[in-house]
Amino acid sequence: MYHCLDTSQFDRRLLEEISELADAARFISKSKEGADWLSGLLSHKRAMLYFVQPSTRTYLSFLSACQILGMQTADVRDTSTSSEVKGETELDTVRTFSSYYDAIIMRHYKANFAREIADMLDKTNRPVPVINGGAGKDQHPTQALLDIYTLRKSFEQRGGIDHKKIAFVGDLMRGRTARSLSRLLTRFENVKQYFVAPDFLQIDSGVLSVLDRLGISYELVDDIHKVLPEVDAVYLTRLQDEWDDQDKTAGHYFIENYALTMENVGLLRQHAVIMHPLPRRQEISYEVDSDPRAVYWRQVRNGMWARVALLAKIFGVEQEIKQV
Amino acid sequence: MYHCLDTSQFDRRLLEEISELADAARFISKSKEGADWLSGLLSHKRAMLYFVQPSTRTYLSFLSACQILGMQTADVRDTSTSSEVKGETELDTVRTFSSYYDAIIMRHYKANFAREIADMLDKTNRPVPVINGGAGKDQHPTQALLDIYTLRKSFEQRGGIDHKKIAFVGDLMRGRTARSLSRLLTRFENVKQYFVAPDFLQIDSGVLSVLDRLGISYELVDDIHKVLPEVDAVYLTRLQDEWDDQDKTAGHYFIENYALTMENVGLLRQHAVIMHPLPRRQEISYEVDSDPRAVYWRQVRNGMWARVALLAKIFGVEQEIKQV
Amino acid sequence: MYHCLDTSQFDRRLLEEISELADAARFISKSKEGADWLSGLLSHKRAMLYFVQPSTRTYLSFLSACQILGMQTADVRDTSTSSEVKGETELDTVRTFSSYYDAIIMRHYKANFAREIADMLDKTNRPVPVINGGAGKDQHPTQALLDIYTLRKSFEQRGGIDHKKIAFVGDLMRGRTARSLSRLLTRFENVKQYFVAPDFLQIDSGVLSVLDRLGISYELVDDIHKVLPEVDAVYLTRLQDEWDDQDKTAGHYFIENYALTMENVGLLRQHAVIMHPLPRRQEISYEVDSDPRAVYWRQVRNGMWARVALLAKIFGVEQEIKQV
Repeated sequence: MYHCLDTSQFDRRLLEEISELADAARFISKSKEGADWLSGLLSHKRAMLYFVQPSTRTYLSFLSACQILGMQTADVRDTSTSSEVKGETELDTVRTFSSYYDAIIMRHYKANFAREIADMLDKTNRPVPVINGGAGKDQHPTQALLDIYTLRKSFEQRGGIDHKKIAFVGDLMRGRTARSLSRLLTRFENVKQYFVAPDFLQIDSGVLSVLDRLGISYELVDDIHKVLPEVDAVYLTRLQDEWDDQDKTAGHYFIENYALTMENVGLLRQHAVIMHPLPRRQEISYEVDSDPRAVYWRQVRNGMWARVALLAKIFGVEQEIKQV
Repeated sequence: MYHCLDTSQFDRRLLEEISELADAARFISKSKEGADWLSGLLSHKRAMLYFVQPSTRTYLSFLSACQILGMQTADVRDTSTSSEVKGETELDTVRTFSSYYDAIIMRHYKANFAREIADMLDKTNRPVPVINGGAGKDQHPTQALLDIYTLRKSFEQRGGIDHKKIAFVGDLMRGRTARSLSRLLTRFENVKQYFVAPDFLQIDSGVLSVLDRLGISYELVDDIHKVLPEVDAVYLTRLQDEWDDQDKTAGHYFIENYALTMENVGLLRQHAVIMHPLPRRQEISYEVDSDPRAVYWRQVRNGMWARVALLAKIFGVEQEIKQV
Repeated sequence: MYHCLDTSQFDRRLLEEISELADAARFISKSKEGADWLSGLLSHKRAMLYFVQPSTRTYLSFLSACQILGMQTADVRDTSTSSEVKGETELDTVRTFSSYYDAIIMRHYKANFAREIADMLDKTNRPVPVINGGAGKDQHPTQALLDIYTLRKSFEQRGGIDHKKIAFVGDLMRGRTARSLSRLLTRFENVKQYFVAPDFLQIDSGVLSVLDRLGISYELVDDIHKVLPEVDAVYLTRLQDEWDDQDKTAGHYFIENYALTMENVGLLRQHAVIMHPLPRRQEISYEVDSDPRAVYWRQVRNGMWARVALLAKIFGVEQEIKQV
């Protein structure tokens, strides 16, 4: 892997490798000596975090991953302070900035911008890896990566991700996390997917036709209570009403059918796990946080380690980590 | 000490220890080898600077302290780029961010927010130390710490802080520095305090009743000229008129009575010191800067070293520094 | 050199030394061991980047230079979050911030501010070097430095900069890069300068009277086509219409006469080089980027290395780099 642009790049072997690398780096970091050793691995590399679409949590996660590996970083978060205001194209802007750095980690409102940048740089005599940290309503490959890593850790004692049943709940039409994760789950064997949403927020047919084509079993469901007793993991998502126009769909949304509360969490099987990409609103009651099945806070930290693993892979130091 | 939330945590022994640690770290840093050694002490720790109430000077002081000890840092200065805009509670936001870091240094407009965060994190399975870098009109414990450190250094050859006379001058009603420092001075023996302000800006009665209860000697004064010949230290503060409503109190404020100028600085005793938490306006004439008794610029640098000492103490590396 | 404030400080010997240092550091950085060694050179120094006039590219270039040498950094980019809002003078603000740092790299809208700060700090007992990273329409000494470095590298096989012919093209009245570079070229022998601009955007007479006084040969030209077959380097610049009032000069500007395109680039001699300080608009067609004579992208990277060399010189580690 050179650029990391979309989830289609992750085959099963790569997903397993990144999960193992994340575990290994995490273990090494537990001692001061280990942490110092990790931060020498990429101490000769520097990364630019080009985050013109705001997202503090993804930004901090990538920044931390860079810091753990000893990469120096620079932020570009506001193009109004760049030369774009002087009539430069954004391709020129990013090419200029890339001159100073060894990698670009990018979050942008334009769906395809990370790929445009990667293609442009590949034609120059100083290309650098481009990592897509999320784009508009579309791809967010490292989120899907951390979700797979979290599921894999959760099912470590129970045979891994194969043959599990996983429910996506909430605003599946607009949340990109469910779409990306659904896709990656097809890399595993016999994973059944449930899509729990009201009609007008159901997952788009493109996702379903991929599942159909691959012969993956799935169900469309309109109430979380129907799936809780069935599944090994429930993946909740929030209503993405920032994309709404005036006639808010939120008004037609019965949160009770798509939320986990102290009332219905008892329906969940003992070994099941509760996930959420965060931020949450009312989809998960705060009291559920102390339930041992709740792994959404661990998910956050897993994201940092999955990104450590991804950077190690991109810069070719994975063997050094594995050999420790 | 785990969290650093308010000045009540600083007993005399801790104040002495932090002052000694600050001196020791400062001495070590004078050589390149020493500086490099210091920056290896906490190279395995990373801190988040959550400064949603702007304060560049406190921010830079803490940032520098982290850098001196080798801690990597991340800034959060504007919550509008975080998920709060998506309906998340700020407790969830900070908990998410804390997942990536080993300490939170926080400046917030809400008086009690640092403690709320500390309490919330203490209930999770990954608590991290929370350091209060100032909150609204209230607590600013590390400012009080650096003031004590500065007084201690200033009186090093004269028996320390015990038995000294210290005058606070200016807007004592709203400036939190005087309140905090007044409190910490009660940890020392027989320190007399003077509060020099017009009636409507005098120190609040809560501070005075603490002094009364502890049997500490103090005087309320309305003109700086009356105390200059008496005191060992004069601590000037600016008019905090950003808290004023339309009918500016500034109009009723005779700055001449609460300022140090080339005219009245001669009244000050030879060994006295001049302090100010900065920023200043007209409370101290620029010509006074070259007076050898002026220590307010040294105070700034002392603040950085006091914060180095505090971080070293919180992360338990104080013995390593002392043994050098 | 202690402060770096304007181009007049760069005599020929210093220009040569900085170019050689830049080459040496660059060569060392090619291995991981070399890069790690470089980042230990100034690991005991920390720099403040005081960029209150926005310029992401200059900022990133300096930041990268600091990182390459292991200097920790802090950004101040928005004075609205500093105490200036509380009535502090900017001299006090910068003095406070300087207390925490070992160097100030400064970009400011006020022409003379870097020098004011340098003068002020020189009178204190803790002066630090001040580096001018560009000021308003005026001095931008490190841009001129990287331009000299680029020319020197371009003519390495052809006897260096002496005796070459160099054309400046575009908005020479307001672009500070042409003015600064013109000045530095007078340090070399027998360099002929061409100023290619419409009358109302021609280089100012101050520059020309310097050339007259030094007996330097130059020509004023109104069309790029007349100089392309003559020169060893063509230095294009963009129209600086952000300084324009309502009656935009842009309307009277025939870009064809001051741009390099696939149509006229063939007129350029085989060994000539094409430079531009960037950002560009239509002065250079995108197709020209792949012409081997185009060095403007290399110029960007040269800027970073020239700044590495400058910092090494200011902090006195140039011998260590030369001896590797």
